[in-house]
Amino acid sequence: MALIQTLKGFRDFLPPDAKKRQYVIDTFKAVFENNGFEPLETPALEYEELLAGKYGDEGDRLMYRFTDLGQRNVAMRYDQTVPLARIVSQYQNVLPLPFKRYQVQPVWRAENTQRGRYREFIQCDIDTVGVDSSLADADLIATIIQAYQALGFENFKVLVNDRETFGDLSIDAITVIDKLKKIGKEKVYEELIAKKIVETLEEAQTLLQSLLEKTPTERLQTMIQELENLGIDTALLEFSPTLARGLDYYTGVIIEIESPDYPYGSLGGGGRYDNLIGMFAGKQIPAVGFAFGFDRTMEAIEALQLFPAELALSTTQVLVTIFSEEFKKISFETLNKLREKNISAEMYLGEIKEKNPLEKQLKYADQKMIPLVVILGSKETEQNLITVKDMSSGEQQTISLEEFLATLLEA
Amino acid sequence: MALIQTLKGFRDFLPPDAKKRQYVIDTFKAVFENNGFEPLETPALEYEELLAGKYGDEGDRLMYRFTDLGQRNVAMRYDQTVPLARIVSQYQNVLPLPFKRYQVQPVWRAENTQRGRYREFIQCDIDTVGVDSSLADADLIATIIQAYQALGFENFKVLVNDRETFGDLSIDAITVIDKLKKIGKEKVYEELIAKKIVETLEEAQTLLQSLLEKTPTERLQTMIQELENLGIDTALLEFSPTLARGLDYYTGVIIEIESPDYPYGSLGGGGRYDNLIGMFAGKQIPAVGFAFGFDRTMEAIEALQLFPAELALSTTQVLVTIFSEEFKKISFETLNKLREKNISAEMYLGEIKEKNPLEKQLKYADQKMIPLVVILGSKETEQNLITVKDMSSGEQQTISLEEFLATLLEA
Repeated sequence: MALIQTLKGFRDFLPPDAKKRQYVIDTFKAVFENNGFEPLETPALEYEELLAGKYGDEGDRLMYRFTDLGQRNVAMRYDQTVPLARIVSQYQNVLPLPFKRYQVQPVWRAENTQRGRYREFIQCDIDTVGVDSSLADADLIATIIQAYQALGFENFKVLVNDRETFGDLSIDAITVIDKLKKIGKEKVYEELIAKKIVETLEEAQTLLQSLLEKTPTERLQTMIQELENLGIDTALLEFSPTLARGLDYYTGVIIEIESPDYPYGSLGGGGRYDNLIGMFAGKQIPAVGFAFGFDRTMEAIEALQLFPAELALSTTQVLVTIFSEEFKKISFETLNKLREKNISAEMYLGEIKEKNPLEKQLKYADQKMIPLVVILGSKETEQNLITVKDMSSGEQQTISLEEFLATLLEA
Repeated sequence: MALIQTLKGFRDFLPPDAKKRQYVIDTFKAVFENNGFEPLETPALEYEELLAGKYGDEGDRLMYRFTDLGQRNVAMRYDQTVPLARIVSQYQNVLPLPFKRYQVQPVWRAENTQRGRYREFIQCDIDTVGVDSSLADADLIATIIQAYQALGFENFKVLVNDRETFGDLSIDAITVIDKLKKIGKEKVYEELIAKKIVETLEEAQTLLQSLLEKTPTERLQTMIQELENLGIDTALLEFSPTLARGLDYYTGVIIEIESPDYPYGSLGGGGRYDNLIGMFAGKQIPAVGFAFGFDRTMEAIEALQLFPAELALSTTQVLVTIFSEEFKKISFETLNKLREKNISAEMYLGEIKEKNPLEKQLKYADQKMIPLVVILGSKETEQNLITVKDMSSGEQQTISLEEFLATLLEA
């Protein structure tokens, strides 16, 4: 049957992957909340009118949209920033400002699928709305750094720039220069000339050189000072005067996270965008925000082996076997004693036939990555002992339940 | 502007509500994982062909469906059971059986909106697939009971029945009798006659009476025995011989949770359905599952005041004020010392004008429900002390930072 499959660009997450995703989200959330960011949820569907035209031609093309049963034109969430702008406008009388919110929800884009690009993916954003202080910028960057550190990243850089660094350079010029890291100096010169931004190679060199010689703006310097005051290791920061992140809506600080250990692109990006959040409220509302690249971060954690080892195992620590009606009660008792000590345990749930073969129960533990199996056969129950099998080493030992509990609680 | 709103039946969750939802989900997840259920995620969009015809005419009518850019007919997730059936078929070679999974994702249904009925809502399901033992039924019910208990519910009933109780009664008859609690005996008699299931009132009375006199089936008795063995208080269980839960797909145990404290309907329901999960695999695959009514459970927790008190407060425990550039550094130091002790703290992020008025900072703490504010003005900093304002009582005291830290760590 052809239809037993997901749509292209959409993914299932079976327990081993779902647990890893949950771990990353939980780790991020703990840092966000510790820094005063609070959760927000918005619907998967919005009025199309609300989203259309907000993401450029590309966005309008890639947006999932349709007409609902009530003949309303609707669109699926394409990002979390336009919904945030709606929220800030719609609830302006009840929202405390500054509004520090985090949001972790899927978005949908009908992209051409390719490595690391999906049509359904989690966005993970933090934004501080309603305040234009450099302290808000510093607070955001401190949170970003702590979030990556909480996941175990050590070797990463926070590239920062200020829109002001570009002075009165045209958007066209900035767009070309923004590609410096990707395409190199020579190609930048070529493009600057091809796009008639400058006329000669010399002019192109002068333009780029003068930018590369820039030093952090006063605003950036204040922000870095505030980060230091917040106890952040500012050696992680790197001033990058050519960083523009493609988008022309940044109005202040521009931020990008890079890890030399993960060469497939930035792990996340953001900046100050004071002209966007007020679009529905009809007034300027300053904001600074950052989008953690969820799938890339997952990939980097995997590549760097930063996932805690226990995440590869089942959340169940112990499988208790059941062999027959006769010994069933002892299996139950063992299970209850484990659970009483808050040791996550489950019983093999297969129908008790004449006799449940051990192989089947061990196979279950093996497939589900349950680290320990308690075997309760006739030999064990006669002696009032249990056999414990360590599934990774294959070792078995026959001990008393009390001894086993003591070992587990010690660990 | 008319469009600054959500679609009918769709909801925003601002931080106070989003935190409550997160609390319920986290509490459920902890219980599920402790009992060996593991997380699963499936996409929001599936091939329409996969979902169509699986939920009856009503489902086909209410499903959100459209044609995507690639001219594929797609549909939005309508429940989590059909996707589970796809998963079990598609990954049958890698999934350990029994497959115990939980899933907490939104689904979309174009329902007529009314009290407690939305077009986007969270489904929260646990299912054990691939095993038809009564132990699997008991394991599921134990998990359900522990989940409600973990949320603080004490006064609730687990209604149980067995499809076998109905013997060879027709679906029509079962459907009428299922309504007993809602419409009462007299109406049931009327409907049994009107639908020509019986001819006379006496026959109707005999039919219902004979059902009401039924005792738990052997299978249910075994299950109750197993629950007792698992240490579950079986006084929470109530045999309900008329319970059918409307659906004709249950093949064994039928389960419904009711709380006398919450009279607006059941908090959740489920049962054994051995003929559904195998629909794509082309073979019978037994399964037992339960759907927690997420929105109703939220409502009941609210009504019974079971939410932990701290959930109403900000996750930020302390707001540190900033008054001027002059005293800024002391504010930073105070913040860092709080955070070092793992006390969640934030600073007021407003631009430091000539002087930041205290009112504005207190208003922020008040709106965001931050319980404590540390005031660092000229008077305090001169004396090397801090003023702590308790936002709920309004009381203020001027103490040393060390004293304050000691009080917080004691609490």
